[in-house]
Amino acid sequence: MADGEKKKRKPLAPAKPLSGFQDWLPEQALAFHEAVEAMTAVFRRYGYGPIDTPCIFLTETLAGEAGEINKQLYRWEQGSKDVALRFDLTVPLARYVAANEQKLSFPFKRYHLGKVWRGESVQKQRGRYREFYQLDFDIVGTDSATADLESILVINDALAALGLERFRIRLNDRLLLNGVLEGFSLVDKAEEVLRALDKIDKIGGEGVRKELADQAGLESVSIEAIMDYAELDRAQGSEAILAAIDDKFGGNAKVQRGLARLRFLLETARAVIPAERLEIDPAIARGLGYYTGPVFETVLDDYPDVGSVCSGGRYDDLASSYTRRELPGVGASVGLSRLLAAIADEGQALPRGTATVILSFPGVEPIEGVKLRAELHRAGLEAELYPQPPSALSKQSGPKPLFKYASRKGFRYAVVLGEAELAAGVVQLKDLDRAEQSEVARGALASKLQELLSQA
Amino acid sequence: MADGEKKKRKPLAPAKPLSGFQDWLPEQALAFHEAVEAMTAVFRRYGYGPIDTPCIFLTETLAGEAGEINKQLYRWEQGSKDVALRFDLTVPLARYVAANEQKLSFPFKRYHLGKVWRGESVQKQRGRYREFYQLDFDIVGTDSATADLESILVINDALAALGLERFRIRLNDRLLLNGVLEGFSLVDKAEEVLRALDKIDKIGGEGVRKELADQAGLESVSIEAIMDYAELDRAQGSEAILAAIDDKFGGNAKVQRGLARLRFLLETARAVIPAERLEIDPAIARGLGYYTGPVFETVLDDYPDVGSVCSGGRYDDLASSYTRRELPGVGASVGLSRLLAAIADEGQALPRGTATVILSFPGVEPIEGVKLRAELHRAGLEAELYPQPPSALSKQSGPKPLFKYASRKGFRYAVVLGEAELAAGVVQLKDLDRAEQSEVARGALASKLQELLSQA
Repeated sequence: MADGEKKKRKPLAPAKPLSGFQDWLPEQALAFHEAVEAMTAVFRRYGYGPIDTPCIFLTETLAGEAGEINKQLYRWEQGSKDVALRFDLTVPLARYVAANEQKLSFPFKRYHLGKVWRGESVQKQRGRYREFYQLDFDIVGTDSATADLESILVINDALAALGLERFRIRLNDRLLLNGVLEGFSLVDKAEEVLRALDKIDKIGGEGVRKELADQAGLESVSIEAIMDYAELDRAQGSEAILAAIDDKFGGNAKVQRGLARLRFLLETARAVIPAERLEIDPAIARGLGYYTGPVFETVLDDYPDVGSVCSGGRYDDLASSYTRRELPGVGASVGLSRLLAAIADEGQALPRGTATVILSFPGVEPIEGVKLRAELHRAGLEAELYPQPPSALSKQSGPKPLFKYASRKGFRYAVVLGEAELAAGVVQLKDLDRAEQSEVARGALASKLQELLSQA
Repeated sequence: MADGEKKKRKPLAPAKPLSGFQDWLPEQALAFHEAVEAMTAVFRRYGYGPIDTPCIFLTETLAGEAGEINKQLYRWEQGSKDVALRFDLTVPLARYVAANEQKLSFPFKRYHLGKVWRGESVQKQRGRYREFYQLDFDIVGTDSATADLESILVINDALAALGLERFRIRLNDRLLLNGVLEGFSLVDKAEEVLRALDKIDKIGGEGVRKELADQAGLESVSIEAIMDYAELDRAQGSEAILAAIDDKFGGNAKVQRGLARLRFLLETARAVIPAERLEIDPAIARGLGYYTGPVFETVLDDYPDVGSVCSGGRYDDLASSYTRRELPGVGASVGLSRLLAAIADEGQALPRGTATVILSFPGVEPIEGVKLRAELHRAGLEAELYPQPPSALSKQSGPKPLFKYASRKGFRYAVVLGEAELAAGVVQLKDLDRAEQSEVARGALASKLQELLSQA
């Protein structure tokens, strides 16, 4: 056959994703979808609405806030325009608020799920990709402490909505560290100090000391003052830490303001969520330059290696690159891939596909299977009809290929409808996990399945 | 202030999206999210699972099936690689199935929501964008007629899930037209003829005749044979059309096979969905080269100008560019932006934001508002706490800025908690639509709101 020969000669195009990019199987995509739905339902309950923005922008627009991330941009010339793909959802929020200022109500509360792209060279690390989803929520246009508090409550409720119970939200306020640095005339070293402190969990106190000396060029008296602050014994509890900071550095006005806000957050949040889920951690810095007030990270007690699954903080002026309007705000970013890796380990969110597959046998008109599926759908059940033509089910192979398909796809139940069953007004109901089979009156199938699923 | 001066001097970066790209306001994004959730719940009920794939590929991978769309690619050199953004979700499905062949169960059923990019020059038309979402569902690895039928039922149920009732799914089979062309030795003109017939609604029968003569170079006897087929009187009903085709062209074997499948689809689908939602339309061609069997389009009776909101069909061999395995299948693509435009006109899916906003007044500790919101959340209500610091609510302005915020964001109810209310254990409940206010015992607020919302 001419067509067949032609096909064989044609070389195949590469089908695999590029390195750093990924295909998701349906079970992964479904777990992701369910986690996002659970968390965004919490966002909506608190009054955050979804937005959507383009992925491609003028590089000039993205670079407005980009700084050092610039070299990781996916960037090209499109016609006469220098364009790039977004690398986070914060810059798109800043420009979105500026571009739509007249149409929005402030304080403006939004969440945003979207892909971002970073041409990083690192990718051997687990969970590092060049294209990945981010999920952010922010409230923009208020400097109220109740907005900071709200961010903490949203994180708590969103993780609880995933079935997680053992986690801690670690709080700090950038005013504390800034005040400490001010006290030692080290304000111009703030960036380097923050960057070093962010690594304290990884490289330890000695590592941070070395970096402060080598990279930031600090003298040992300054280093010890900073470490005095960063190495406060967390085991003594949040209230004791706040008291110790007040005691050692409380003469500075910024430190006083930071302490007041942290005390408010700690006390008020603990009135509505479990006290053990909140703790003050003076070492948390969140290296990004734009944070100016409270900052927070969230760790899962059972998965300390995963790192922070939800981080954020307060900023004074979100969109200064795009508008003269001052827009303070607070928000956080959910580490979806980290969260999903942890949840998948627990086996909590692994779906089993739809509940039931219907197998209709040779001699049975397709409409019979179609009607049976419609009955199950009307009863709110998930049901799939195996679509192979009847001839594929020979007398020889029997229902085996169907059961194989059903098991592989994760079905619990299979319903078999053959000629004999049709005549008798029954179906065979097979429990694929237990390899048990029973005969059920056709009219009673939906209620029988509902009963079985409610017991599962 | 030095900082202020510096800020004023710095030119602002451009904040607006590029031409052909769009920002969505929360109400648009929420309507989109709700429509997608309703439709994908139907897909899942039928056993279709979600997948996710990269947006960026080697141009070589995308060009495997691309053909004429190539010139619309967003394409650039990334390092040493020639890469591009995907322009649809069909090519990504073909390569996905080939790349993951060993991990998937066949027949493989997936849906996919994702953005695609096309550098089209046209964009003045309503609803034409360079970056937009597609939503596809397909079943791959079967040539069963029940899979074709399933696609039709899924379209029906998905539109019904959006609250739509008046729509028609128009069916045809490519074998009919191919058989007619074969009968007149015009098989090599198939592409041109399909392209011309696709325009029949726009340019009319005479326009098609002209195009068949001028573009395809057909003689008038061939043109009249094709138009004999394409202009069969649809008003006489689907069964009569099938009979007329059988009568005029039934001598051809392909026509016979096409008629048999269409009869099966029509009869079987009408046994489970309203008969008037299905009709045979011999003029439907779906210009794309890869369709080989049944093809379908869906029109909303009340929005004929919107065009087809869900189109698809059967293909013999999806992934021949990527694998030697033959993969027949059937699927469809939802025209999300068209659907949403129609739904928005009906005002069906315009959300009203969260149900209630809580306003806590000067003199009331923030924790009181926080606790009240938590009570409403526990009762399953959506509730937001207005976050401005108490000082923003001066005695002079009163609650007016709050009511303005609440109305603009679309809230129906506002709950006011002042010092007097706190002392008396009550709240003021304001109906913003009716401008009515009543006092409610604080402990009874949740049940009162539930009652009001159930009446709304």
